[in-house]
Amino acid sequence: MNFKLVLRITGFTLLIEAAAMLLPLGVALLYGESPVPFLSSILIILAAACVPVFLLKPKKDFFAREGFFTVGLIWVLFGAFGALPFWFSGQFGPYVDCFFETISGFTTTGATILTEIEGLPMGLLFWRSFTHWLGGMGVLVLTAALLPFLGISSNFLIRAESPGPVKSKLMPRASQSSKVLYAIYLALTVLETLCLRLAGLNWYDAVTHAMSTAGTGGFSRMNASVGSFGNPAAEIIITVFMLLFSVNFAVYFLILTGKAKQALKSDELRFFLIMVAVSTAAIAWNIRDLYNGVGECVRYAAFQVASIVSTTGFSSANYDLWPEFSKVLLVVLTFIGACAGSTGGGIKCSRILILIRSARREVRSIIHPRAVSVVRLDGAPLPEATLHTTQCYFIINLFLVFGMAVVVGLDNFSFGTTLTAVITCISNVGPGLELVGPAGNFAAFSVLSKLVLSFLMVLGRLEMFPILVLFSRSAWRRS
Amino acid sequence: MNFKLVLRITGFTLLIEAAAMLLPLGVALLYGESPVPFLSSILIILAAACVPVFLLKPKKDFFAREGFFTVGLIWVLFGAFGALPFWFSGQFGPYVDCFFETISGFTTTGATILTEIEGLPMGLLFWRSFTHWLGGMGVLVLTAALLPFLGISSNFLIRAESPGPVKSKLMPRASQSSKVLYAIYLALTVLETLCLRLAGLNWYDAVTHAMSTAGTGGFSRMNASVGSFGNPAAEIIITVFMLLFSVNFAVYFLILTGKAKQALKSDELRFFLIMVAVSTAAIAWNIRDLYNGVGECVRYAAFQVASIVSTTGFSSANYDLWPEFSKVLLVVLTFIGACAGSTGGGIKCSRILILIRSARREVRSIIHPRAVSVVRLDGAPLPEATLHTTQCYFIINLFLVFGMAVVVGLDNFSFGTTLTAVITCISNVGPGLELVGPAGNFAAFSVLSKLVLSFLMVLGRLEMFPILVLFSRSAWRRS
Repeated sequence: MNFKLVLRITGFTLLIEAAAMLLPLGVALLYGESPVPFLSSILIILAAACVPVFLLKPKKDFFAREGFFTVGLIWVLFGAFGALPFWFSGQFGPYVDCFFETISGFTTTGATILTEIEGLPMGLLFWRSFTHWLGGMGVLVLTAALLPFLGISSNFLIRAESPGPVKSKLMPRASQSSKVLYAIYLALTVLETLCLRLAGLNWYDAVTHAMSTAGTGGFSRMNASVGSFGNPAAEIIITVFMLLFSVNFAVYFLILTGKAKQALKSDELRFFLIMVAVSTAAIAWNIRDLYNGVGECVRYAAFQVASIVSTTGFSSANYDLWPEFSKVLLVVLTFIGACAGSTGGGIKCSRILILIRSARREVRSIIHPRAVSVVRLDGAPLPEATLHTTQCYFIINLFLVFGMAVVVGLDNFSFGTTLTAVITCISNVGPGLELVGPAGNFAAFSVLSKLVLSFLMVLGRLEMFPILVLFSRSAWRRS
Repeated sequence: MNFKLVLRITGFTLLIEAAAMLLPLGVALLYGESPVPFLSSILIILAAACVPVFLLKPKKDFFAREGFFTVGLIWVLFGAFGALPFWFSGQFGPYVDCFFETISGFTTTGATILTEIEGLPMGLLFWRSFTHWLGGMGVLVLTAALLPFLGISSNFLIRAESPGPVKSKLMPRASQSSKVLYAIYLALTVLETLCLRLAGLNWYDAVTHAMSTAGTGGFSRMNASVGSFGNPAAEIIITVFMLLFSVNFAVYFLILTGKAKQALKSDELRFFLIMVAVSTAAIAWNIRDLYNGVGECVRYAAFQVASIVSTTGFSSANYDLWPEFSKVLLVVLTFIGACAGSTGGGIKCSRILILIRSARREVRSIIHPRAVSVVRLDGAPLPEATLHTTQCYFIINLFLVFGMAVVVGLDNFSFGTTLTAVITCISNVGPGLELVGPAGNFAAFSVLSKLVLSFLMVLGRLEMFPILVLFSRSAWRRS
């Protein structure tokens, strides 16, 4: 293991984190708030990062295990150092709570330990939403775009970071790809900000909610999330953008390069849109007695479905008070999540589609045991290895959900709270049901549970394998 | 499809069901109860079964799809006709409740719709436990033992029925195998009856509880299940026998033929025993403040762990009042279930073991992508097709659990009730948490939910594929 290089890269990304803190620092000054939490955090990060960045002279050997280890280390340290402004402010509780909140931010989960959000300093709340935006496209893709400057190949980092079962490179060089993705990401964020401003939100709310949407995070400045605004237009705008950020960004790339037809043929996109439409209709029907008229029911249902499938986690109503049918359906959507190659989390629609098709093939093979058939996605046959990996992904996800639910069960909250807390964290959604429902929070959990849930958020965000490999003996053996 | 032969076989097994009703009829007469529910049921079954059995002269073509269709039909009709005595008695509620109770009996689930069990006629309660015993070893294995008399190959039936991912034939002929299995099954049942009688239970309770244990069913004559007896010796005896019935019967066969060493080398058996020991210790520690002393805690914990992993579903205490850690752990054990080749249900330990090992291989392959490695069970490499089938089995199981939970959610019970009702039915355990906990029952569910849960019980009992194949278009196409 080339630890020197690992540390140098990690140090470099921490410098980016310190630079990123200048923005909330500016916001704090703008609102006349103390800049001290940010200033001291930046100084500590600089002190910690400068040593490896400027003093270490590592060899350039960088292989898969260095890549995975770097990714894991960066995520943990980003959480650890990013939590400092919250901690120095003294308004976010003990350090483990600040760490949980920051990991929840960078992993774009949006699960909060705050019981009372309104009234907290604007600078800190800006940082909270900004972590979503930074995490959304992947801290590592950002780094990768700048890594050529370090003169090393960033393919291993990209492999560990980019979501989805099938990798499709948009551009031959990773650094080019990530620049295109960032341009689309930035453009959509700006567009949403402008729309929200036009809908009547102030600039601060427009920017922070657009950042939270873009990263499919879900932190809001309001206790009752987007519902607090009582602004149907803003709810509809956010619904649309949550769905836009759930779609594989390759679709936008194809549309921009004049290949709209090819983009719309995607099996995953169709599956996603049908799932959203059917779930919205079912929930709108199920909550028909709670709201006035079809329009309102559809609006609330569409918002919540979009919020959960995109793994954002905003709420426009306290859906924990909805009938159980809607709630169980939302939990199922929490598992499934968004499209691969988007900023969303969850198991991903393409994986679910692959699993359904390979399960159907398995059932068919009972009747026709000798027939050889392939599983296809977008018309192309998938290699058996991809099927196997996808199946293992699902199986490990479910094993972790139920295994970790036993550990979180030690806190002795209800079955619904325990299980949905775990599911919502590994899927990077944010809210679950009951105590961790849209009106609740994660404050009451023990330190152990908060660490377990933070771990699950990072696992989910990195699609598990890059982190799990660090627990495998063979990753540490000399090769 | 050779419907004539399918109907003839089905009719034949229904005659066995009618014959089986003579035993509870005798019990009813013994206790001076009305024999009418049984007499009228037997007459109806005879009328329905005689036509296909004696009048149809089918061809002998019998292929896989005929086998699967027969299995599905037999299970549905066994439930439909077996429910008649309950229905005629007028004490088990509407017909759908009687059907649910009978399917729950034959599938050895033990989920009940009865709110008040004590005081019901002894003949009917005997029939209820007897369905467990009949279902335990598989109605079809029984049939298969007698099928050669019909002059047709029973291999397809056995393939559809016998539990577990890897088939091991004990004897070259299926009819011989099932006779050996039945002998072991009967011997263990008789042994448990005698032990329970010696522990102080009366003959009726000893026989019915031994039958419920043998089938890993869980119906009890008492509202509070085995706990009602307040008899620690009986609880320990039942704990031991629940575990004995959870073990692959091939182990007993090997021991009987002097190959004890080979039997004890089984990976699955070790996994099962370690899982039971660790879970018992964890729960005993978790409930340490609820009972007096280590002995009592271990006794309650061991009973409940054995009851759930064996998928019996008896209870010696209302574990729904235990801390959440124990409850979530019991739900996880509900998923896992017993060993393959036993009378128990669930996903089965061998499958879980295969899944863990193939997931570990997948993680390793990230670091060593070119290394070729096999997954082994009991030292022998498993074919990739077996891995694939096992993975699909797990995935379909989880898809069904969450998909059907949405449907059962329509009844608007709590998240814990809804989800554990579905899990406990597909795993053939019986009780779940909250409303369907050990002190609860399934009476309050809608007709739709009762039918969905009955369907899941049959799916779980038949290990899904034989039933799922009937929903595949290719099963009905002419080949």
